[in-house]
Amino acid sequence: MNPASAPIGVFDSGLGGLTVLKALLDRLPDERFVYVGDTARLPYGTKSRSTIRRYLQQNVEFLLKRGVKAIVVACNSASSALEPGDSWSVPLYEVIGPGSRSALAVTKNRRVAVLATRATVAGGAYPSKLQELSPGLTVFQEACPLLVPIVEEGMEADPLARELVRRHSSVVVDQAADTVILGCTHYPVLGEVFRRMLGDAVTIVDSSRTLADELQGDLRSGRVAAAADGRVGAGASPRVELLVTDLGPRADELAARFLAPHGAEPARLVDLG
Amino acid sequence: MNPASAPIGVFDSGLGGLTVLKALLDRLPDERFVYVGDTARLPYGTKSRSTIRRYLQQNVEFLLKRGVKAIVVACNSASSALEPGDSWSVPLYEVIGPGSRSALAVTKNRRVAVLATRATVAGGAYPSKLQELSPGLTVFQEACPLLVPIVEEGMEADPLARELVRRHSSVVVDQAADTVILGCTHYPVLGEVFRRMLGDAVTIVDSSRTLADELQGDLRSGRVAAAADGRVGAGASPRVELLVTDLGPRADELAARFLAPHGAEPARLVDLG
Repeated sequence: MNPASAPIGVFDSGLGGLTVLKALLDRLPDERFVYVGDTARLPYGTKSRSTIRRYLQQNVEFLLKRGVKAIVVACNSASSALEPGDSWSVPLYEVIGPGSRSALAVTKNRRVAVLATRATVAGGAYPSKLQELSPGLTVFQEACPLLVPIVEEGMEADPLARELVRRHSSVVVDQAADTVILGCTHYPVLGEVFRRMLGDAVTIVDSSRTLADELQGDLRSGRVAAAADGRVGAGASPRVELLVTDLGPRADELAARFLAPHGAEPARLVDLG
Repeated sequence: MNPASAPIGVFDSGLGGLTVLKALLDRLPDERFVYVGDTARLPYGTKSRSTIRRYLQQNVEFLLKRGVKAIVVACNSASSALEPGDSWSVPLYEVIGPGSRSALAVTKNRRVAVLATRATVAGGAYPSKLQELSPGLTVFQEACPLLVPIVEEGMEADPLARELVRRHSSVVVDQAADTVILGCTHYPVLGEVFRRMLGDAVTIVDSSRTLADELQGDLRSGRVAAAADGRVGAGASPRVELLVTDLGPRADELAARFLAPHGAEPARLVDLG
């Protein structure tokens, strides 16, 4: 077991997973984090399960070598490529379970829609987790393949983004789902657009907050060793080491935007491959 | 020098480069080809120059190990990452030169627009090649980052594709360019949409045909050893070995569509990395 002072590792195909890291920073003020964004191979969600599994393993092994005490898979496509037999030397957290539990906590009519990448939809991890937790629940899925490039390009205020959100919202409305899981870490950036399109009758689930709650519970129970109180603290220097496999001009700007009011060290280039 | 019977290697970040391979198959009926689509790391055009150069080198080395007699870089983003000192053991063909020469052959008002990926635009290879060949030429560039995912998703008939083409066409019209280079191998799939939007006053340049002409010239002159006449022939079994780094469900369907009436062997998975 790695020491209590070790950081928590977080990874995603790119920088979208910073929306998950933000929730962790909010909830866990004493912890430090190492974030890996595999920007050189972004996106994952259009690729096959076997390729995504290979990338997942490389990310996990990279973080284990850096001595992390727990790993958060902040990517739905990678989470959905996990298999029951997978086992690593530190606790591993993924986003499908927390997202499913959040949805179950709020749905009243037991009709849940999942909007996700092609890979996540094809893997079927959300329907199978939701139905395992609550047999008989009705689940609808839709792949939204253009939303990742829209967010990566910073086009969330563009009319094209609104048009795509309108299309993907219609499956929710047509199927009378009262709960939507935004099953890709990029999509919360479009949360406001979805909220306006869907109105108050539909609840949009935030899996990152549930994930942060669950990790906080495990730090309290000792399943993961908690950092000593006040060792870093909310007011201290950045608690995030930011590593990317392709260092584009916008990495630090995106990190500042996604993590505010928290900060990160300037992004550095690493090789996973 | 590899033997005349060796195949010609062609690579791209994905399957868009099959539009270039099609032109080569049309023009060079006696030659065989090995095509590599780096679909596991697609797209290249949103990534940094140093990452694209690393991928370029891996593709070239992979093809050299397979004994090709020449290599075609059927990807504008990779072509634009080549540097003057680059040198390999077989002749290497890229698409920026042929595209520039095609544009110069048709422009009358000497105003040329280049539509390309972010990486190609940032690298400035087209303006610098065009102005080297014809000093004083006026060149406009525009990055079109969503067109690759639109084509990859097979959405070229979608109103969203028309809206994006309309936006990108306006730079051509506003700047009174009479010639447009579609500087990404995916964009010719949207050629008809661009043609309707731009009308007859603007010529859309097809760099793959010029590239095929230039390679044919080199096969005739002996710079590249030509396969013996009739050894394969237009009526023979597929002349294309199709290799990809991520084997998605649509690879063979896309290959059939992009290469018709030519065919390819079923796609096989390889690792460049």
